[in-house]
Amino acid sequence: MSYQQLEKTFYRLAQLDHASAMLSWDQQVMMPTKSNEPRGRALAELSVMATEILQHEAMEDLFGVAEQSATTLETWQQANLREMRNAWKSALAVPKALVEAEVMAANDCEHAWRSYRNSNNWQDFQPLLQTVFDLSREKAQALNSTLATERGYLNDYDALLDLFDPGTNLAKVDSLFTQLTSILPGLQQSIMEKQQRQPAPLQPNGPVRRSTQLKLSRDIMTVLGFDFSTGRLDEALHPFTGGVSGDSRITSRIDENNVVENIMATIHETGHSRYETGLNQDWRFKPVGRAMGMSIHESQSLFFEMQMARSKAFIQAVNPLVVKHLGPDPAFSSTNLHSIYTQVQPSLIRVNADEVTYPLHVILRFEIERDIILGKKSVADIPECWDEAMNKYLDLDTRGNHRDGAMQDIHWPSGAIGYFPSYTLGAMNAAQLHQALIRAVPQAADHISQLELAPIFEWLSVNIWEKGSLLSSEDLMLEATGETLQARYFIEHLRSRYL
Amino acid sequence: MSYQQLEKTFYRLAQLDHASAMLSWDQQVMMPTKSNEPRGRALAELSVMATEILQHEAMEDLFGVAEQSATTLETWQQANLREMRNAWKSALAVPKALVEAEVMAANDCEHAWRSYRNSNNWQDFQPLLQTVFDLSREKAQALNSTLATERGYLNDYDALLDLFDPGTNLAKVDSLFTQLTSILPGLQQSIMEKQQRQPAPLQPNGPVRRSTQLKLSRDIMTVLGFDFSTGRLDEALHPFTGGVSGDSRITSRIDENNVVENIMATIHETGHSRYETGLNQDWRFKPVGRAMGMSIHESQSLFFEMQMARSKAFIQAVNPLVVKHLGPDPAFSSTNLHSIYTQVQPSLIRVNADEVTYPLHVILRFEIERDIILGKKSVADIPECWDEAMNKYLDLDTRGNHRDGAMQDIHWPSGAIGYFPSYTLGAMNAAQLHQALIRAVPQAADHISQLELAPIFEWLSVNIWEKGSLLSSEDLMLEATGETLQARYFIEHLRSRYL
Repeated sequence: MSYQQLEKTFYRLAQLDHASAMLSWDQQVMMPTKSNEPRGRALAELSVMATEILQHEAMEDLFGVAEQSATTLETWQQANLREMRNAWKSALAVPKALVEAEVMAANDCEHAWRSYRNSNNWQDFQPLLQTVFDLSREKAQALNSTLATERGYLNDYDALLDLFDPGTNLAKVDSLFTQLTSILPGLQQSIMEKQQRQPAPLQPNGPVRRSTQLKLSRDIMTVLGFDFSTGRLDEALHPFTGGVSGDSRITSRIDENNVVENIMATIHETGHSRYETGLNQDWRFKPVGRAMGMSIHESQSLFFEMQMARSKAFIQAVNPLVVKHLGPDPAFSSTNLHSIYTQVQPSLIRVNADEVTYPLHVILRFEIERDIILGKKSVADIPECWDEAMNKYLDLDTRGNHRDGAMQDIHWPSGAIGYFPSYTLGAMNAAQLHQALIRAVPQAADHISQLELAPIFEWLSVNIWEKGSLLSSEDLMLEATGETLQARYFIEHLRSRYL
Repeated sequence: MSYQQLEKTFYRLAQLDHASAMLSWDQQVMMPTKSNEPRGRALAELSVMATEILQHEAMEDLFGVAEQSATTLETWQQANLREMRNAWKSALAVPKALVEAEVMAANDCEHAWRSYRNSNNWQDFQPLLQTVFDLSREKAQALNSTLATERGYLNDYDALLDLFDPGTNLAKVDSLFTQLTSILPGLQQSIMEKQQRQPAPLQPNGPVRRSTQLKLSRDIMTVLGFDFSTGRLDEALHPFTGGVSGDSRITSRIDENNVVENIMATIHETGHSRYETGLNQDWRFKPVGRAMGMSIHESQSLFFEMQMARSKAFIQAVNPLVVKHLGPDPAFSSTNLHSIYTQVQPSLIRVNADEVTYPLHVILRFEIERDIILGKKSVADIPECWDEAMNKYLDLDTRGNHRDGAMQDIHWPSGAIGYFPSYTLGAMNAAQLHQALIRAVPQAADHISQLELAPIFEWLSVNIWEKGSLLSSEDLMLEATGETLQARYFIEHLRSRYL
């Protein structure tokens, strides 16, 4: 009975999530420029209401009774109870006023970021970002001081990692990322030397209209199983997947001079969307039915983009669609497109980076945010740290270029601190999952070349999508691939594709 | 202190309203076709949460204490307290389960209506509409049995009228509408005879592209003071004004073969929007700061559309904009457009009706819904009653044509029963307000011919928009025009424009 009451409470929370998800999507895609203030208030109030529900004094008893009779529950219900408990404990640890202040600060900072980034204005941006980081530190400290024992946190940053990617911790990230930083710069060097001996790929001949790009995107999304009767594609400043499981909202950022980038960005978001819409519908509106953390989420988008869509087989298979929409430009031949999609070249912008240099963009952000949260650096240090790391990892000078430096991402201004590591953990998960898929479905490459993707989606569905939050991300990887996350599959993937 | 606590509670309710308003707008404008089920759940849960907040046991004491010290409050605060009390009392009268059932039923019925209307399928639509009417009757009975004394209800239908247009009652509506039905059919006959002696207006030469219509609409909206940095125009199946005061969302239904209709529909919605965005910003998020009922709301849209935009002066003044977008077709000359915009002709569709026959469309709907709520007729009788009334009032046969008959409007399927009278009360209010404006600003017509509309908006702002819900609609009209609502200004307006 207590368990059922908890389910009812979390049903309400799921509906508040629905409202917040849609209001946030609208804010980024549809909302008029000057309507941000009332929107911020509404989003903040919804957050506070969710917090109040979780912090309600009756919850203690409900959990107490439900946990006593947990053995009578089915396995998925036990997992649901665990997820509900985690949400409750986290909410108890963070004062309501802090939640509200965080939402408002992120709302202000993210909104201002849109114009300050355009004008390269770090100076006016910094105090807003300072507030966001201060509140995030305060939250991390609150979580760590309350939940260290229960969740095994060893430092404040662990608490933030855990919010985005449950079970991940600084020690694990440090260890995996150290393996990457010891290999990637050298690997990148060898790949670039190899590629310099080959002819450079042709660049497309002139711009491609937004409407044409959208049509091509929609056709490719359809091939990838996106259902437009329960989802949309729109334009936004930053590509993202929003909405809810039954109403998936993808965005892409269309540059008429870069259709090539847009295709992959759309495929990436489609991976996120398939995961969300593929979640177990029997567990709708229940925490166990939610996606399992961002490193698994990112593994799905990167499975679609990196493992599948940048393969020769896929690029050849979708070529008729590409030519249909973009015309017979030799730059759009599958050989040339494959060459474009596998060029390795250090660059300033994370979202445009190739998959070999991408982890270095992530690692530099991780190192900065980690050090700020742990009190070793301040927000004012960011431009200098950024430049140093770009120099060290990618041999690039970013001095004074904030717009293409520390102001390029939406994550920090929107309060998503502790999120960046998920991208590279996701890339590693994706490579490891892909190896497991090939063992399970040896003809996967043939299926891809025929665009018969159902067996691949079926494998992902059974092993990842339908599992929701039943297992920790560690156990999910263990069950799907036979071992916990290892760096070597990703490294092997890069070597085999690029060397 | 109790008063301040009530304000805080109603601030939360305003944020829930923000969420519901935006989710509803999205549902009608952006949402994918099959995502209605989860959206319905979210909207229902937000309603239930609002109801729970209002029904909370602590409210009784808060109101008790606040009302004891009401004399220490400023006038606007006293009005705010009255509005808060009305909302509280109405919420107490309606059980939470009924609120939830109503939202879900309306959501299902409205969603189904979109396809059943297209396929003229009354049979499958009727049971869904039956549920909506049943729940509405149940609500009306609950409100009437609890609040009859406090609000002066004499019957169940009074309680529904009061929800949309506070203070209106069946006796008042019956009396005003009887004056109209005694005059309009004869007046319409005389006008048609006069118009038949004149040459018919030219019809536009071919279709006008959606994108052109949208550009023209946006230009006219700008002339009317619509601010696109706090609002949007989009397409929807049914024109409406949604959103919130700081983020106004207008829709229009664009038919490439009917640009003429679209122009006026857009002007109409712009009137609604100016009222909402012109509300007193000092009273934001407070019930006293909300728009005062639908007959005042509709008076603003009809002031814009009927009193202002269908005048010769306005049509001439915007003609350069019209010609700029639509080209030199003689049908778009101001003389011809004025002739089109003042043609009187009985027709099937309310939203396309001219201002002389429009009230008859409203009165037939009013009579049907009144009789169903009072238990004198059933939902199954609607098609027959509809046909009888169309015959009697407009000499039209609608047998079997449900799509252009009882299924043409979104109101009933969406649960808005008791709403229709507001349209015609609004038309009467608009005519009376226009007379008062001319007394206060004798050069109003000159201003309109120069498109110098600021003095007109200023008068509306001071007399209506900024007043919010400070006064009852009766007192609002009394202060603005010197008398309560009379039918004669509307009749005089029709005679002077059409005879």
